Amino acid sequence: MPRIVDRDERRAHIVEAVTQIIVRDGFDRLTMRQIAAEAGYAHGAIARYFPDKQSLLAAAFVKVFTLSHEHIDQMVEGVRGLEALRLMVLELMPVDEEAVGRSRVVLTFWDLASQDPELREIHHENLTRRRELIRRFLLEAQEDGELVPHADIETEVNRVSAHNAGWQMLGVLMPEASSAESLHASVDAMIEELRRAD
Amino acid sequence: MPRIVDRDERRAHIVEAVTQIIVRDGFDRLTMRQIAAEAGYAHGAIARYFPDKQSLLAAAFVKVFTLSHEHIDQMVEGVRGLEALRLMVLELMPVDEEAVGRSRVVLTFWDLASQDPELREIHHENLTRRRELIRRFLLEAQEDGELVPHADIETEVNRVSAHNAGWQMLGVLMPEASSAESLHASVDAMIEELRRAD
Repeated sequence: MPRIVDRDERRAHIVEAVTQIIVRDGFDRLTMRQIAAEAGYAHGAIARYFPDKQSLLAAAFVKVFTLSHEHIDQMVEGVRGLEALRLMVLELMPVDEEAVGRSRVVLTFWDLASQDPELREIHHENLTRRRELIRRFLLEAQEDGELVPHADIETEVNRVSAHNAGWQMLGVLMPEASSAESLHASVDAMIEELRRAD
Repeated sequence: MPRIVDRDERRAHIVEAVTQIIVRDGFDRLTMRQIAAEAGYAHGAIARYFPDKQSLLAAAFVKVFTLSHEHIDQMVEGVRGLEALRLMVLELMPVDEEAVGRSRVVLTFWDLASQDPELREIHHENLTRRRELIRRFLLEAQEDGELVPHADIETEVNRVSAHNAGWQMLGVLMPEASSAESLHASVDAMIEELRRAD
């Protein structure tokens, strides 16, 4: 089925171009014309794969989230419990210019997701997957005797989620409170409170 | 100077109408026509006070934030330290339908603020004021011997800020994790970790 493979490849190529633009420039500059230029296609050719900007955005977000999950999976390979949680949370923090750029995209995506059912669903799946990973690391910490005995796993999953999300906003809108030092201090304080005193 | 007073009053009246619409319906339905209808003015009359939607939005947000600060100031009157912090944080949580509606507005505002210098400045002032209040309560807790000795005030200001902001997103985009019970558990766990064990 060479035509189908070709179609899938082209589709993936277009999504790749959109992803590049979003990560680099954000949404504002995302025009169909720019996407076509970046992917090396004629303007009309894009529309054969994605009928509207919405469907393209949805595909691009799935791609961005998949890349992020794969990256985190690699980072925590062979690591478990609180150390794995620390590495994961640090990876999501707006620690440098590129990460702050991603946070800006995240803020826009939250706004769009709150208004559109399809984007909301994509966001929901992404967040659910992240929360499952947080839960796994907390359960490992519990199993290994690392976790404070009084910790309630679901409450801590929520607190870690909220911490990560909140820093996306602070990184973009309150940069003076978001130095690498402050971010590390916040993550370390959170992890240390989860750790059982010996 | 009756004309100036009248102008200020009318301006305040329009801002009030906009604030009502934003809190009730969000941004999407915010048209100049609807604002005129809600304020009881002719469409053209609004433009004499606010040349564009942007200037109206900015004024409305200042109003929304001022109301919220005044409400919190009343709530914590005569209360200090960790109990004042607990009351303040709870007030910001998306605990019911109205509060979730406000969180949806907050998500949109973050996105707009990340793209517009004037709205960004309004957001920054609001957040700075909230953070000053968090800092005050933490310092009171320290003074009263309530606070865990190892707590770093600025790190905890950041963590409380991030916690509050993150729950705005979760309340809107992951409602199943945002029951009143979960929200209370998250706030209580945060406050208890700040409290010195006796």
